[in-house]
Amino acid sequence: MKADFILYNAQVFNVFLKKFEKRNIAVKNGKILWVSQDCMDTIDAAERLDMQGKYIVPGLIDIHMHIESSMTTPSRFSEAVLPHGTTTVVADAHEIANVAGLEGMESFFQADTLLDIFYAVPSSVPSTNGNLETTGGKIGEAETKKLLENKRVVCLGEVMDFKGLTGSGQSEIKKIMNAFREQRPNLPIEGHIPRVEGLNLAKFLYEGVGSDHTQQSPKSIEEKISSGVFLQLQKKSVTADNMAAIMRNNFCEYTCFVTDDVMADDLRNEHLNGILKLAVSCGMPVETAIYMCTYTPARYMGLRDRGSIAPGKTADMVVLSDVENFRIETVYKGGKAIFENSSAPLKRSIFPGEFYRSIRCREIAEDELSLKVTDDPGIREAVCNVIEIERFGTFTKRTKVNVKVKNGFLDWEGSGLSLLVVMERYGKTGQISFALTNILKGRGAVGSTWAHDHHNLMVMGTDKQSIASLQRKLLMEQGGYGVMVGKRTEAFCCLPIGGILSDKPIEILGEDLSRVRKAMEKLGYENSNPVMSFATLSLPVSPEIKVTDKGIFDCLTQEKIPLVEELI
Amino acid sequence: MKADFILYNAQVFNVFLKKFEKRNIAVKNGKILWVSQDCMDTIDAAERLDMQGKYIVPGLIDIHMHIESSMTTPSRFSEAVLPHGTTTVVADAHEIANVAGLEGMESFFQADTLLDIFYAVPSSVPSTNGNLETTGGKIGEAETKKLLENKRVVCLGEVMDFKGLTGSGQSEIKKIMNAFREQRPNLPIEGHIPRVEGLNLAKFLYEGVGSDHTQQSPKSIEEKISSGVFLQLQKKSVTADNMAAIMRNNFCEYTCFVTDDVMADDLRNEHLNGILKLAVSCGMPVETAIYMCTYTPARYMGLRDRGSIAPGKTADMVVLSDVENFRIETVYKGGKAIFENSSAPLKRSIFPGEFYRSIRCREIAEDELSLKVTDDPGIREAVCNVIEIERFGTFTKRTKVNVKVKNGFLDWEGSGLSLLVVMERYGKTGQISFALTNILKGRGAVGSTWAHDHHNLMVMGTDKQSIASLQRKLLMEQGGYGVMVGKRTEAFCCLPIGGILSDKPIEILGEDLSRVRKAMEKLGYENSNPVMSFATLSLPVSPEIKVTDKGIFDCLTQEKIPLVEELI
Repeated sequence: MKADFILYNAQVFNVFLKKFEKRNIAVKNGKILWVSQDCMDTIDAAERLDMQGKYIVPGLIDIHMHIESSMTTPSRFSEAVLPHGTTTVVADAHEIANVAGLEGMESFFQADTLLDIFYAVPSSVPSTNGNLETTGGKIGEAETKKLLENKRVVCLGEVMDFKGLTGSGQSEIKKIMNAFREQRPNLPIEGHIPRVEGLNLAKFLYEGVGSDHTQQSPKSIEEKISSGVFLQLQKKSVTADNMAAIMRNNFCEYTCFVTDDVMADDLRNEHLNGILKLAVSCGMPVETAIYMCTYTPARYMGLRDRGSIAPGKTADMVVLSDVENFRIETVYKGGKAIFENSSAPLKRSIFPGEFYRSIRCREIAEDELSLKVTDDPGIREAVCNVIEIERFGTFTKRTKVNVKVKNGFLDWEGSGLSLLVVMERYGKTGQISFALTNILKGRGAVGSTWAHDHHNLMVMGTDKQSIASLQRKLLMEQGGYGVMVGKRTEAFCCLPIGGILSDKPIEILGEDLSRVRKAMEKLGYENSNPVMSFATLSLPVSPEIKVTDKGIFDCLTQEKIPLVEELI
Repeated sequence: MKADFILYNAQVFNVFLKKFEKRNIAVKNGKILWVSQDCMDTIDAAERLDMQGKYIVPGLIDIHMHIESSMTTPSRFSEAVLPHGTTTVVADAHEIANVAGLEGMESFFQADTLLDIFYAVPSSVPSTNGNLETTGGKIGEAETKKLLENKRVVCLGEVMDFKGLTGSGQSEIKKIMNAFREQRPNLPIEGHIPRVEGLNLAKFLYEGVGSDHTQQSPKSIEEKISSGVFLQLQKKSVTADNMAAIMRNNFCEYTCFVTDDVMADDLRNEHLNGILKLAVSCGMPVETAIYMCTYTPARYMGLRDRGSIAPGKTADMVVLSDVENFRIETVYKGGKAIFENSSAPLKRSIFPGEFYRSIRCREIAEDELSLKVTDDPGIREAVCNVIEIERFGTFTKRTKVNVKVKNGFLDWEGSGLSLLVVMERYGKTGQISFALTNILKGRGAVGSTWAHDHHNLMVMGTDKQSIASLQRKLLMEQGGYGVMVGKRTEAFCCLPIGGILSDKPIEILGEDLSRVRKAMEKLGYENSNPVMSFATLSLPVSPEIKVTDKGIFDCLTQEKIPLVEELI
């Protein structure tokens, strides 16, 4: 038996022993043939490469993430993450599914990438239901069955509808879960279980949910793992306390690291490798951190052909010059070397023409932004429900603010608040909703068609001209994310594919998005991640008050909230 | 939410923490709802049972075993193992598949059992090919695809054909593996990799084989696990040295315990619980042994709904009065209590009528057992190839013995050797093969239609009358395993279903088989397990010389060996 090549004189990471050993690696047809000190003497090979004592670890595997969070296409994403050592991802493409349903998923499946991309069945498209929001596509029972015909679909994506899941009646999520289980009883059902504990956690798990990737504390780690949850730790869960809890309890077998959402600008610098390094800097031994980025995610997800450097496994390997700092020299994907310093070869994603014509709403006029609240000239003030944006994360609070009323019109421009406009953009209802928020300071507007999860058109501003100008620009460009002050564009990131993706290289897209982020901050948008914060103001599943094309909602009760509570 | 019942005041084993904790368990609709100290105060329940401080562990899970090894039906097997704490098995029903192909498998699927039985696709039916042996059924590419339509089929059964697998040409096993992988890429491919190491082991694994359940040593454990093999340790691998190797290397995550083959008489006393106790007596902490009989087998096999006592898991639980001795008080299967001291409720296996008419060969006459070897009256001796049966395990050695020739006939009756007769019994060729063996001492014969894996009719004896009488009895009874001396039956175990199974209760069947075993020993059959040793004399895949209905074979080269090597 002749190998294609042998990497010799290497320190190879054995996940089962959780240590590095001096070994040679023989590769044949894209798979590992043998890992041994005897390769050089025993096996013939077309090529032999001296690794000069460098370290080799398995390719990193990210089992919970959303490509669309990086506003990019599968091909560009592949190109961007391979040099960071990520060789396999399991993508929950629920954003493109919100925009274009099964056809959106299909366009992702079609993308020819070097990166191996497996998929989840998105379980919450739309995130709530047609009464609360309008989307371009939906994933129900029938779509679930259809998606499961594809061998690259390996799990049910994050189930989050606690009420629908644990209630007594029939619900959309129950139908989807039953269809999924009926067809593939041994595939994992992923969960999104934030801040849930005790009996409520048990009720969630009772229905068959197996994992969670939301923010954890040492207490939630201990409770969830001892209740059988496989934990997927994203960046915000990687703290010294959490890493200590995992090491103290020997929990590494039941956990892995995931990226979930990575902004396009951050993606230029790092991917899962960044989380691995962070874990090490938080006190986790590097061997354990590597294990949790390779073996445990593959095992949990049932990806039996990867996650270790062992005979029969896909030859996905990362060569490091320095383990502690995870300094990457070379990445092998399926036995092919991809060098960090040259760009990874690009294979193209092909999207149908209509994906470039997906913003189907009308232009809004400035005077439509004057909100009449009464015919009674005696009314001087309105008690308004305001969405107060928190400084960390994506949560909001409901507050009440008195706003002056002039000639029956709400004087929001003079109130120090911003007007947030959400327009249905799939050409279905054209409905427009208005809300008030607290965050912007100066004159200007922020807007986007990348608005989780339904991705309708959303603009928030302190003056009518800025809002109307930005709405028009989003329409003209057929999607994007930007900031305008009056008629002047401060920063704009084009997202012409379905209004949520760009196929520019990540270097360019990341630069564009970085400018948008800075312009938002300049406008006073204070948040740990303003790009994500704004984009989720319209997501009716995270607490506690959000606005969709259907109006303002209390996210817990799903009840509608009026903009004006009372006229005084 | 109201639970069906709560078990309170119990020490519950948490597999994730690998320890017992004082907890209450709430069960609803056959699944665990909650495990907490707060169950009693928080949840309403129809029934509350005081566990009086007893220990509760998950039901035991045996992921590599053959029901037919116990010569019994799925229903009787279920009845027999539940009181031993086994609540789930993954059965490789390759014996019934050898006898009756897909229809045989179907008859097992149909059996309504309390025990959860999942199935492997048997990968080696027949064990070799039509040139070496005749079987009643076969499992090829088409049958594999058909079997995978059944949701209870969860893996590809033990792949063992090293030559077919690693050779360059197309082979039956490659076709089966490709069909399996194409249809279910994330199901495990089980292996049978005895005494294979180094590059040969790598070649086996390179093809995608993921596990091994053959006999291990500390050295093979270390090599195989560090090469990515999931080890399934059966009784003969449970030694103090092996347990120490597992504990020393923290290998418990990559191993589990399995039974493989349990004789009907042994099954009366123990099942997987016996191996668990043996592991503890060999120095393994009981918590680790429980972990390896519950969590690791379920996780490896992708049985995500079991293997722990946690919310959402099937309520399969074993109540113990004493952990160290694993003394079982009660077994819960899917939330139903089955008490050891009453018999487990029997559900029936239904087999079609033709399964009871499966021995389709003719009666043999005594004079057919006189073997003419030459027409030359001058010949006095024949150098014969003899199957020498080893005292441990199922291996044999090829030796040469000079046997007298009288009037052209081989005087095997006067040689101190036994004649072994194998008759094709599926009504296909009726072919008869003869071989000589070394083991029996006195007058008499041993015979069986339970002859791994092809299950043709096999009789071995020291005299013609005993052989012919036993052959007739096996035919009349339509299957069995027995010992006769002349025309007198010493012991006989009826196996009327397909010639390999009985539907008597295990208590009765075990007694019958135990008598056969004793009668074999009385006849001088010295072996660690004479029942299995004899039944595998016809299995052409284990070293090194065996006889099938097609003749005597060198198992390594698959070349035919003549009975008489040379006439002198």
